[in-house]
Amino acid sequence: MKPSIPKGTRDFSSTEVAKRNYIFSTIKHSFENFGFQPIETPSFENSSTLMGKYGEEGDRLIFKILNSGDYLKKVDENLLSEKNSQKVTSKISEKALRYDLTVPFARYVVQHQNDITFPFKRYQIQPVWRADRPQKGRFREFYQCDADVVGSKSLWQEVEFVQLYDTVFSKLGLQGTTIKLNNRKILSGIAEVIGAKDKLIDFTVALDKLDKIGKEGVVTEMLAKGITQEAIDKVDPLFSFTGTNEDKLSSLKGMLETSEEGINGVEELSFIVNSINELGLNSANLDIDVTLARGLNYYTGAIYEVAAPKEVKMGSIGGGGRYDDLTGIFGLKDVSGVGISFGLDRIYLVMEELGLFEAVELPKPKILFLNFDESESLAKVKAIKILREANIKSELYPDVGTSNKQQKKQWKYVTNREIEFVVTSVNDNKFTIKNMQTGDQNLLSINEVIDLVN
Amino acid sequence: MKPSIPKGTRDFSSTEVAKRNYIFSTIKHSFENFGFQPIETPSFENSSTLMGKYGEEGDRLIFKILNSGDYLKKVDENLLSEKNSQKVTSKISEKALRYDLTVPFARYVVQHQNDITFPFKRYQIQPVWRADRPQKGRFREFYQCDADVVGSKSLWQEVEFVQLYDTVFSKLGLQGTTIKLNNRKILSGIAEVIGAKDKLIDFTVALDKLDKIGKEGVVTEMLAKGITQEAIDKVDPLFSFTGTNEDKLSSLKGMLETSEEGINGVEELSFIVNSINELGLNSANLDIDVTLARGLNYYTGAIYEVAAPKEVKMGSIGGGGRYDDLTGIFGLKDVSGVGISFGLDRIYLVMEELGLFEAVELPKPKILFLNFDESESLAKVKAIKILREANIKSELYPDVGTSNKQQKKQWKYVTNREIEFVVTSVNDNKFTIKNMQTGDQNLLSINEVIDLVN
Repeated sequence: MKPSIPKGTRDFSSTEVAKRNYIFSTIKHSFENFGFQPIETPSFENSSTLMGKYGEEGDRLIFKILNSGDYLKKVDENLLSEKNSQKVTSKISEKALRYDLTVPFARYVVQHQNDITFPFKRYQIQPVWRADRPQKGRFREFYQCDADVVGSKSLWQEVEFVQLYDTVFSKLGLQGTTIKLNNRKILSGIAEVIGAKDKLIDFTVALDKLDKIGKEGVVTEMLAKGITQEAIDKVDPLFSFTGTNEDKLSSLKGMLETSEEGINGVEELSFIVNSINELGLNSANLDIDVTLARGLNYYTGAIYEVAAPKEVKMGSIGGGGRYDDLTGIFGLKDVSGVGISFGLDRIYLVMEELGLFEAVELPKPKILFLNFDESESLAKVKAIKILREANIKSELYPDVGTSNKQQKKQWKYVTNREIEFVVTSVNDNKFTIKNMQTGDQNLLSINEVIDLVN
Repeated sequence: MKPSIPKGTRDFSSTEVAKRNYIFSTIKHSFENFGFQPIETPSFENSSTLMGKYGEEGDRLIFKILNSGDYLKKVDENLLSEKNSQKVTSKISEKALRYDLTVPFARYVVQHQNDITFPFKRYQIQPVWRADRPQKGRFREFYQCDADVVGSKSLWQEVEFVQLYDTVFSKLGLQGTTIKLNNRKILSGIAEVIGAKDKLIDFTVALDKLDKIGKEGVVTEMLAKGITQEAIDKVDPLFSFTGTNEDKLSSLKGMLETSEEGINGVEELSFIVNSINELGLNSANLDIDVTLARGLNYYTGAIYEVAAPKEVKMGSIGGGGRYDDLTGIFGLKDVSGVGISFGLDRIYLVMEELGLFEAVELPKPKILFLNFDESESLAKVKAIKILREANIKSELYPDVGTSNKQQKKQWKYVTNREIEFVVTSVNDNKFTIKNMQTGDQNLLSINEVIDLVN
């Protein structure tokens, strides 16, 4: 029986790890360049920290860890015989795997509030786990890459996050991403103007489908949810919302003039758009998108979502926004936060599709020393030591091969691992080295070998 | 109620992450320099992969993950009413958190055997979880850093691992570590010679305590375990086993001359010792230690253990050895492996104690731009953009501070984060920049600022 791994999880080969690390280190470098500091939190938290923070569906998707030892001993027998899984869970499990990085971050801020200097710019790159049904691009274990600032309401943060997205995606070679921007206050303003404040979520959920089901579909859904035709007519411009960001802002300003909150949202968007116009972007486009209703129960100000370059079909590769009360759930009030996230797995797929991993150095030795003659091994190992000290990855094929068959195996290793240079033999401190691409062969001293491959 | 984390787990602050990453990246760089390739495996495995691989105690310490959904539905009611936790576990949990990196690696090799080029040199740096009782230096979540080669019986691998330990510890600045070396065959040979082959484990467990309980204690324990005084007398030289490695080898050779396996072990040790004598070490000592009986059920050849520099009191900071049948548990026979591990947490404590983290760059901005005047903010953000492009970490204090109190808060931020350079104001593209260590203040252009801080 061949061993396997749980569904929704993955093994990563060396090549995959190298490519993933290339993305991680690019993100990390930019995070630090922008002044974000790394923190790390445990893989599992107390269940009480996580449960109830992600809604009923979220609670279901959290992986729970069974208590150790004789965990059934103290459980009420009647409860067991009822077989009520949900009730029993709280008796036999008190820890759970991290579901995202945001709630553990909020917990961290509250727990360590006396050691933190605010505003606190933190980043965190760690795996999270969700008992979701696995499907293409959706896994049960995956990494999140989050950067957040807490303790400041300044809109310069929102501006900085647009720059940060642009910087990272430009460095990764992803030309032409679109950073979509909205504001929760605009959505609230729209609902207010159409007199359907209590139907805000229905409205935005329907509006969010504009791309998929078109105007007619959205209107049908809105009517079904009890939003009047009159109200829908008031926001008609939203169904064909094009032009420059300035055009959109001016249209919104008109549409929302009776809503204080809406105008507030327009002003915030204007500040971000104007600042970015002044600062310029390297390769990304900034685009106001009022259909963007991501994390609606959560975000209170700016909302971001990043779309991959148009030539690639892919969901959003990043997102985020401002939340005015992140740490309130753990008892620390009035700490505003804003943050963004990078979707590693999707970025990986996009880069693979666009052939952007070619520059990544794959993990393999630069020089392989073949091992055909035991009497040469020590001289080769001595040379390898010098090469490694010069930061040239090199290896001895470990087993000595004297027969034809054994030597063939060594050459096959060279081919399989796509080794660039091969040392076949050493004589009087001169090494016979072959360039496997050109076929050139030379007899060189160790210093000449270093010069050759560098 | 202040939030907390499960016992045995840890939050890591930015400073701690930076120090840990310094160790990780040093190890990783050397692993790759020596030709090891990274792989990663999922945090949880199928329970069947892990259970039964670490002994009864190990099985108990494995963290089990509760099945999702209505996991009690199909469990037999009688089984539940019996409250037999162990039996119920296999019905309500089919996944478990990784306990070490070795078993998942064996599973990986078997599962991907057709995609792997052997000999396969892999490294893996990932967390593992154990439901152990937490105590000083022992955690329920901790990282392992492993490098292994499978598919080769060449002793050059054993030599290379000694070099690898020496390289990593030298790079970390840990002068004077001791790489202790033993061989399972020597231990078997000793048991054979004294005619207590069936008591090998008792013998080595007792011998391993020589440092702690002295010769008398060890002898008492051996006698209690049924090893005869006559047998003990035969190995008397082992109780005062000193001198050079060559002295020890020659003493072993005499003592074990009647044991083929023992002589085999002496020859293996001699090869490693002689090769290392030829190659030299940077800062470590290599020391044959026959009391080393680590992983006895597991290792079949070389056994390593690394002791911290003598001035620090600390258990072993690394260990490993050769195992002849790693992948047999998953049905792939005759794949010999050898590998070593670095103990991150203990290395961290040793480095902290020896003050070796001073060279580590802590995550903070090089230049902070104070934000006292809203009309200057945009010019400052533009300057920050240029500085970041020149790889100079810099930040704007996000909230504008006009009152005395607000400005004090910004200066306090400078102090708390130990910022080196502060820009107070900008006028006509000239920046007033202050060196916080010297107190020097200058009026500089952005290019002059770059020159100043670089």
